[in-house]
Amino acid sequence: MKKVAILAAPGFEEIELMAPLDILRRLNMAVVLAGVQSDKVVSTHEVTVSTDTMLDKLHADKLDALILPGGAGSWVLRDTPEVIHLVKKMHEAGKLVAAYPAQDVYRELNEAGAHIVKDENVVLDGNMLTANGPGAAMLFGYSIGEYLGEDLQVAQLKEQMCYTGL
Amino acid sequence: MKKVAILAAPGFEEIELMAPLDILRRLNMAVVLAGVQSDKVVSTHEVTVSTDTMLDKLHADKLDALILPGGAGSWVLRDTPEVIHLVKKMHEAGKLVAAYPAQDVYRELNEAGAHIVKDENVVLDGNMLTANGPGAAMLFGYSIGEYLGEDLQVAQLKEQMCYTGL
Repeated sequence: MKKVAILAAPGFEEIELMAPLDILRRLNMAVVLAGVQSDKVVSTHEVTVSTDTMLDKLHADKLDALILPGGAGSWVLRDTPEVIHLVKKMHEAGKLVAAYPAQDVYRELNEAGAHIVKDENVVLDGNMLTANGPGAAMLFGYSIGEYLGEDLQVAQLKEQMCYTGL
Repeated sequence: MKKVAILAAPGFEEIELMAPLDILRRLNMAVVLAGVQSDKVVSTHEVTVSTDTMLDKLHADKLDALILPGGAGSWVLRDTPEVIHLVKKMHEAGKLVAAYPAQDVYRELNEAGAHIVKDENVVLDGNMLTANGPGAAMLFGYSIGEYLGEDLQVAQLKEQMCYTGL
């Protein structure tokens, strides 16, 4: 069973966090929602969610993919050394890092050598998948499912979920 | 300021609840998340959210729109007399009722005289708006915003949110 962690930082964007969580749990993956600063987290638009675990309980060697939602929470992720450490460990192990980078993080990523295209909805570059906003959140979730080998189930799921996007 | 209530019943579909909440709060509407059975509610795919208020605190005369998310929670909504009472009051007052009906509820609605088209993503019939699943959730949210008079802001928001759907 594929194991995926989604980081929940204060100010996370609701659709960006929920769409991949919903889709990957429908694909029967083991998805944990991990609190970055606390186990109850308030989103950008004031929804409080309870997490399943905490950031310090995550280990790259036990994960197949790591998801970083955007919104105001993306600054918290960027400024938390433990998050950066985990992202680096995932990256070194060739495991999927899937993120919605904030505007200036795109620049930093590109300067660091990643090929991130801001105008594309979802871009895969090696083991780094990026999406440009909540409008791309379902496609982002499906793309993670495909990356983790569930192409056939993803195709069925798009139909079940009445998804009419790309 | 437009006032909108979203009902959170156990087993609600995450994207269906979060997308309109996110979009309508971005449009600066007063959106309350109301618990149907409890003030902490577990979604279809095991996410626990805290609500802002409870169903029994809602009154049709203080609302402009009522939203009923789908998923397993839609059966709970259908089987809760206070929900049916509130929907009827909203309907009698000509106010928007926006829902993702479950399969057999479509049939019941059509038998009751509503014009619900299961194959269309989002359908407006009088003051009743329906969507056919999570894939339509963002369009559903934008459609509610437009119904409540925010056409221009909705157009801007679609762009901001990188929405590429219909």
